[in-house]
Amino acid sequence: MNASIDFGKWLQQVRLEKPLVHNITNWVVTNIVANAEISMGASPVMAYAKQEVADMARIAKAVALNMGTLNEEVVEAMLLAGQAANQMGVPVVFDPVGVGATPYRTETARALIHDVKLSVLRGNRGELSVLLGTGGAVKGVDSAGGGTGLQHAMQSYARERQCIVVATGEVDYVTDGESMWELSNGHPLMGAITGSGCIATGLIASFVAVVKQGSPLRRYAEACVAALTCYNVAGEMAALGANGPGTFQMVLFDQIYGLDPVILEEKSQVRTVTESE
Amino acid sequence: MNASIDFGKWLQQVRLEKPLVHNITNWVVTNIVANAEISMGASPVMAYAKQEVADMARIAKAVALNMGTLNEEVVEAMLLAGQAANQMGVPVVFDPVGVGATPYRTETARALIHDVKLSVLRGNRGELSVLLGTGGAVKGVDSAGGGTGLQHAMQSYARERQCIVVATGEVDYVTDGESMWELSNGHPLMGAITGSGCIATGLIASFVAVVKQGSPLRRYAEACVAALTCYNVAGEMAALGANGPGTFQMVLFDQIYGLDPVILEEKSQVRTVTESE
Amino acid sequence: MNASIDFGKWLQQVRLEKPLVHNITNWVVTNIVANAEISMGASPVMAYAKQEVADMARIAKAVALNMGTLNEEVVEAMLLAGQAANQMGVPVVFDPVGVGATPYRTETARALIHDVKLSVLRGNRGELSVLLGTGGAVKGVDSAGGGTGLQHAMQSYARERQCIVVATGEVDYVTDGESMWELSNGHPLMGAITGSGCIATGLIASFVAVVKQGSPLRRYAEACVAALTCYNVAGEMAALGANGPGTFQMVLFDQIYGLDPVILEEKSQVRTVTESE
Repeated sequence: MNASIDFGKWLQQVRLEKPLVHNITNWVVTNIVANAEISMGASPVMAYAKQEVADMARIAKAVALNMGTLNEEVVEAMLLAGQAANQMGVPVVFDPVGVGATPYRTETARALIHDVKLSVLRGNRGELSVLLGTGGAVKGVDSAGGGTGLQHAMQSYARERQCIVVATGEVDYVTDGESMWELSNGHPLMGAITGSGCIATGLIASFVAVVKQGSPLRRYAEACVAALTCYNVAGEMAALGANGPGTFQMVLFDQIYGLDPVILEEKSQVRTVTESE
Repeated sequence: MNASIDFGKWLQQVRLEKPLVHNITNWVVTNIVANAEISMGASPVMAYAKQEVADMARIAKAVALNMGTLNEEVVEAMLLAGQAANQMGVPVVFDPVGVGATPYRTETARALIHDVKLSVLRGNRGELSVLLGTGGAVKGVDSAGGGTGLQHAMQSYARERQCIVVATGEVDYVTDGESMWELSNGHPLMGAITGSGCIATGLIASFVAVVKQGSPLRRYAEACVAALTCYNVAGEMAALGANGPGTFQMVLFDQIYGLDPVILEEKSQVRTVTESE
Repeated sequence: MNASIDFGKWLQQVRLEKPLVHNITNWVVTNIVANAEISMGASPVMAYAKQEVADMARIAKAVALNMGTLNEEVVEAMLLAGQAANQMGVPVVFDPVGVGATPYRTETARALIHDVKLSVLRGNRGELSVLLGTGGAVKGVDSAGGGTGLQHAMQSYARERQCIVVATGEVDYVTDGESMWELSNGHPLMGAITGSGCIATGLIASFVAVVKQGSPLRRYAEACVAALTCYNVAGEMAALGANGPGTFQMVLFDQIYGLDPVILEEKSQVRTVTESE
């Protein structure tokens, strides 16, 4: 049931290449995103200054932009980093945290997707439905419902913009505009810690970082599916050893670090679905 | 010995309403404050930009302002958020971290309490005695003694400003200007991690967030007593399963998440005291 | 094999004095650096505003400057804090995180070591070789090789600038320009969490904070050796109780908190080496 994606092979590629991932992420999660990426095998760097983000983005293998805690400097830095990455063909993953919660977040997200070519757009159902105009809602930074026709809108957007769109939640959806993958792994405790979505974004960046430049879009989709499946399976296994969200967060890093390709394959629950509402 | 406050009922109300709490907190503790609030059942959002803090404060059920790591932007953001909250009747909890350590902190705290109507002022004994003028001292961000007559000053301030004043430490004190509650729960390991006071502020905000607007001041005091008792009892239980401050911090979130109303009631040590020095 | 340094005595001095350590550190590690310092017995404060950093540095017993996440404000704050510390004889520890990764980081580090008199310069091998001009490399914020002649360059720099130079890695090196200490404690899991170097910097600051002003340079070197040995031995012991990097980080704080002078002495692996390439 693994949709022909060899998750273990993706994981080993990340561990082998240790790709440099440049993150402009929010202040709530900088530490845990860095630790999640290191645990998976990537080499994260956090850099925010307008004086250096373009330089850092150019030498990175992927750039992750997360608008969880905005200010003018961060917005400028995300644009500079995103555009520098675009020039070098470095994939950009964008996480529009809390879009819809305030006009500033909505305007910032819209400006960013206008000015930067994304490889991956990842949000929760509420965020994506705000950004894709399907009428969902956001409460602070949490999804408050996904709107109707979200999957259809994701596919349209992916096709039009030639990027991957990822909606995470109890079930995750990934589309390249043609196929739609449905990922059923994961555990409710992943929603009981702050930054579980931000970690997903960081890990997606770590996996698209090992896609050879010039690869077809489908390869990027597979990288996203592999990243999320690794994360979700680690989450399931972490939950077995946790007594609540505090110990869960720590055991989660252990499980990401120790992920075994065979177990990963056994536990993975991914299926390809066709266009659906 | 529970001073007629039904702690379990307060806890269940937070878990039921999942109130949106807008935090402008310091960079040292953003992650743990968010996790503590989520573990208790609230829905935290961290937002700092002057372009959005007023919008976020208006849709929140409570606003927590913490001046642990100041800069000009944060000061402006705290004022904007606090005043927007005031306009909408959203309760504001203020944590004057390190007031007295530098003139900038002292001036900032004074400006903030002048320009924003607080529902709750929470500090350690050193901070409160600096701010209320009873001659205590602060070493960095740690209390270096509470000065004399602190409880009296707390009551006067609470009465004059019609807000709740909370002093946390080995024993916590809460006053609405009329009554004074003395809270004896807690564990020394709570003082061995950074941000234990900041978490207290965040949890107080999560509880005053479920007080119906227009309620008498005493209801806000009860919310503070309930929040701190939940936190302190979770701390006691976490200490039983911890081997030091590292594991304590993680088990603390587990214990907050799993708090049982019956155990909470059994373990609570709160008494109402009358005006005392 | 302890090079005549009484590690336990240094540790007890930190625990006794609880020195105020002013950190201007990066946003990725603020929380864990604070917790590591508290666990060791110090009293950390994080303050970044240009309006207060000089005031804070003047009352601190040591100042730790870490350029992991720069912006104009942080650069200005580091200079102000460093110079204020210099005026008062407060030791300054500098961590040039990621120097060499971008021109901005390199220029900032060079400006800082030009304008501020350091007591300790600490980096990984890649960072130090970039800064000392021995031709190493940096990948993001990770060392990508130390260049040739690094130990010689460290000694020359230490002698010329009358400061301690510390290179951390699998083996740590500390020099005051005369002697060179080689520290062999530690565990690979220390490299599997973000901020292990930043913690080292913070703990070094906590130990030089208890050196009496006016002491010979060698005392500062011994403080560095003691700080790193305490940290590394705690790391070894934490690894025994950890299942991966997540639990390791938490148990590490427990082990720092509970460090026993006798065990510390038994486990310490430090030797003095003479000038070597």
